[in-house]
This record gives sequence, structure tokens and C-alpha cells, in this order.
Amino acid sequence: MKIAYQGIKGAYSEAAVYKHFGDKAESAGFDTFEEVFEAVKSGKVDYGVVPVDNTIAGTVAANCDLLLKHDVYVIAEIYLDIHHNLLSHKGTSLKDLKIIYSHPHALEQCREFIKKHKLKSVPEYDTAGAAKIIKERNKKDEAAIASEFCAKIYGLGIIEKNISTAKNNITKFFVFVNSDKIPKNIKQEKTSIVFRTKHYPGALINCLQRLAKHDINLTKLESRPVPENPWEYSFYADFEGGVEDEKVKLALSEMEASCEFLKVLGSYPKGK
Amino acid sequence: MKIAYQGIKGAYSEAAVYKHFGDKAESAGFDTFEEVFEAVKSGKVDYGVVPVDNTIAGTVAANCDLLLKHDVYVIAEIYLDIHHNLLSHKGTSLKDLKIIYSHPHALEQCREFIKKHKLKSVPEYDTAGAAKIIKERNKKDEAAIASEFCAKIYGLGIIEKNISTAKNNITKFFVFVNSDKIPKNIKQEKTSIVFRTKHYPGALINCLQRLAKHDINLTKLESRPVPENPWEYSFYADFEGGVEDEKVKLALSEMEASCEFLKVLGSYPKGK
Repeated sequence: MKIAYQGIKGAYSEAAVYKHFGDKAESAGFDTFEEVFEAVKSGKVDYGVVPVDNTIAGTVAANCDLLLKHDVYVIAEIYLDIHHNLLSHKGTSLKDLKIIYSHPHALEQCREFIKKHKLKSVPEYDTAGAAKIIKERNKKDEAAIASEFCAKIYGLGIIEKNISTAKNNITKFFVFVNSDKIPKNIKQEKTSIVFRTKHYPGALINCLQRLAKHDINLTKLESRPVPENPWEYSFYADFEGGVEDEKVKLALSEMEASCEFLKVLGSYPKGK
Repeated sequence: MKIAYQGIKGAYSEAAVYKHFGDKAESAGFDTFEEVFEAVKSGKVDYGVVPVDNTIAGTVAANCDLLLKHDVYVIAEIYLDIHHNLLSHKGTSLKDLKIIYSHPHALEQCREFIKKHKLKSVPEYDTAGAAKIIKERNKKDEAAIASEFCAKIYGLGIIEKNISTAKNNITKFFVFVNSDKIPKNIKQEKTSIVFRTKHYPGALINCLQRLAKHDINLTKLESRPVPENPWEYSFYADFEGGVEDEKVKLALSEMEASCEFLKVLGSYPKGK
């Protein structure tokens, strides 16, 4: 069982892989999200895990586009708490530090802490990469902002936990498989779809009414520009109910008739 | 007339300021989006300009949250074409280059070019910051990925234009004022609102029907988690029509009655 994610060892995406598949999972990091999708399609790996939404930064638009483009099927969602910690060499204390490495988003989210302690911040590609650099450079006055998981992976100590200003930082990931290899025993509690409406006032509402009519509760709705044609929109929707439920089947067949295009991205159990 | 934006001199946001207000505008760069909003509220500046959407990266979630939080009013939208160019010292040619600095998103979008020319990429906070560094370091084998506007600001040459793989890279900005100082003569062609629905199946559709009933065409719709209460959602919607149009007034008063909360973010002319 091999699972693809984007990033280097210790990335939040890899932490999501282990949260969902357990410690025995064999994870494989790829440079880009596109490569994660390609690895699943080619059979190089069994599953792909990619972030799709974050409570602070919002939707990961690139992965919405890739889910639409590739012939894959979502079989699970994972919710991962993001805790930004200050990592450095074991025995180092906060007053020794001068320079902090991390991804610009993490530096931004920890801006108040960095300012308070008069540290210099240096951008890196990702939080795990920052932890790796700290380990390799081995300087007493440098630290990284990264996860507890990274501290373990790179053998670093945690100088201070949860240094981010914003709390409630949660990332949602999707787990997907090749559409030809959908497992049979998935508990279907939620469904994700993408659709494109015809162009007239009320077209979107007309489509959504097919869901409301059958008492289906939307949990997410988002418009995304069509990549080849900006300012024309696709709509991504999540709702409660499995794709095999009688009322969902009815609603989707009615929606299909009134949409220009509709794709079921997957149907899966509720994440915790 | 003073206009606040986030970033350093040469940022895409500053280019948007000049596109909208003309070359005579007095622009002021701030470190964070929050400071842009605060500068407008305190009267330190007359206008704020912030990115709200990009055709590739999607919605700028932080600014959605700030528009909801602060008592400001959107009076215009600006569409800016994002062209990533390779900038270095005048006279440098592509074959001299070894290292490329830029924001991780820009590096990612130019990944194929960087790979083809066997360059080493180094992350920076923003594209303008990368251009500034190239100027200051003054090394013959280093370049930045940034805008044509940055080349002008920092006195650099353009080695190669449009090196990004993805085309159709457009950012939408909002121009806003303090809600106490809304200019009288704004041409109102589009309106942006944010609303929160009650919790029952079909609540969102029930709200949206108020718009459809009055023939109002949605151009954007997006759910955003409520920051204090993740996985509860606010909905951001843009539609055609000014807030003083009779049918819009009717629709909004009906929506207000069936929503838990509704705020008009602004009403403004269509951007080009």
C-alpha cells in the first residue's frame, strides 16, 4: 500500500497520510500536486493525499482544478490540526535564537511571536524544508517554524509550541484513487461534485434546487474560474449523503439534466 | 489622494493602484493586509487596494475575512494581468544565469522554464522583494521572476518575457474606502455581499432564490469557514446590479429576512 503526497519528508501532507493510513503506511513525496495525480493514474501508487481546504488560507484552488481534470475518485477526507512550533537543536533556548526559517504563510501566521522576540525571518519553500535546513546547517542561533512531526523526522527539539497568532488552523485533505479501482466497501456519508451551469440568471439556483427539493444539505459551495476561460465558473459542492442514497441519485440525475456539465468527485465517510 | 496596498515598492498590488488611479497617485505600502484596512479606517489613507481573487490560485481568503470584519465599503474592482518576467541586470543574458529568486508561487508557475534552463530557484517573500535583492546583490549570474513594473522600479532589464507555463493569470483587486466616506458619484453595476444562513437543508438555496426571483445574475459564490467557528460557513456572493437598483433593494431586503446575517460589502462599476 503506497500513498503519494506533495512535499518532502515531514510535510503536513505526509502527517495526514499517517493520520489516515497508520504508521505502517508507505508514503512517497512528489515535487508537485500534478505528479501526485499522475502517480495515482499510472498505478505507481495506490492512493493520493492532497490538501483541498484550510480554515485560514481557504481553498487550495490548484487541487480543485486537478480533481476535475484527472480521472480519480475521492474515497476519504482527513482533517489535520496545524500547529506551528518553534524547532531547533535540542538544548537550544529561545534567547539564543536570531533567525527563523519557514514557509511565508507560517512566518505570516507567527508574525507577532517573531516581532516580540526580535527575530529575523527567512522564507523557505515549505515548513518541512525549513526544519531540514536547520538540521543540516547546525547553527545554534537558527530555528524553523514547523510541525511536531517534523521535529521527530529531523531529530530537532521543540523550543516553543503553538506560536501562531491564529488558532483553529485546520487543513482538510482528500484521499483519492484511480477511478478504475474504487474500493467496494466505502462508507458513503458525504459527496463532492463539480458542475457548470448554463448562462441565465438563476441557473445556479435552479441547479441547487434539485438538491434542496430532496432535503440534501450543502456543506460547501464554491465557484472556481474555468482555467481555459477565466471568469466563466465551475461550482464545487460538498453535501451530506452518499452517492448511492436514493434521494442523492434522484437529485443528481435531475441536476445533470439542468446543468451543462456535472462530475461526481467522490463519495466517502465523514472525516473526524 | 493616498492609497494603501500590501507589499514593498513594485508589488503587483502597487501596479493595480497605478492602473486604477493613474501615475499621479500617491501609493503607500504596508507589511500586512490588516494594516491596509487599519490605515483606511484611521484616515491615514483615502483608499485601500487588496487582491481578492486570482484565476490560478483562487480566492485570497484573508481579504474576504478582513472585508467582513472591518467597516469599509468596496467602490471599484480592478483586473490586472499577471505576467512573470525574468529580470536581471541590463546586458545580462540567459546563459549567464545560475540562480533565480522569487515568491514560491511564481517559482512554481515558472517551474518548466527553470528546469529547462537548469537554474537553481531560491524562495523570497514576494516578487518585488526578489527584484530588489537582485539589484542590491548586483551579481551577474542571478535573476528574479517579477513584473515589468518591477523592472522599471528597480532599474533592471527584462531577459525574457512571460516565462510562466500557465497563461490567463489574472488577479482581481478591490478598492475600498472607510464606510463613513463613500463617494456620492459611484456608478453601481455590480454588488458584493456576505451572508450567513440558518441551519436547515436548503437554507442557502432559500436565500439565493431571493436573488433569482428578481432576475439577478450571480457572478461569484463562495463559502468561507467562520474564523471563530470553523466548518460553519459564511457565503460571499457577487452579482450584477447596483445596490440602489429597485430589484436589488427588494431582493436584499427579502434575503435579510431569511438569513442570519447579511452585509453589503460594496457596489461598484464593472472592472475591465
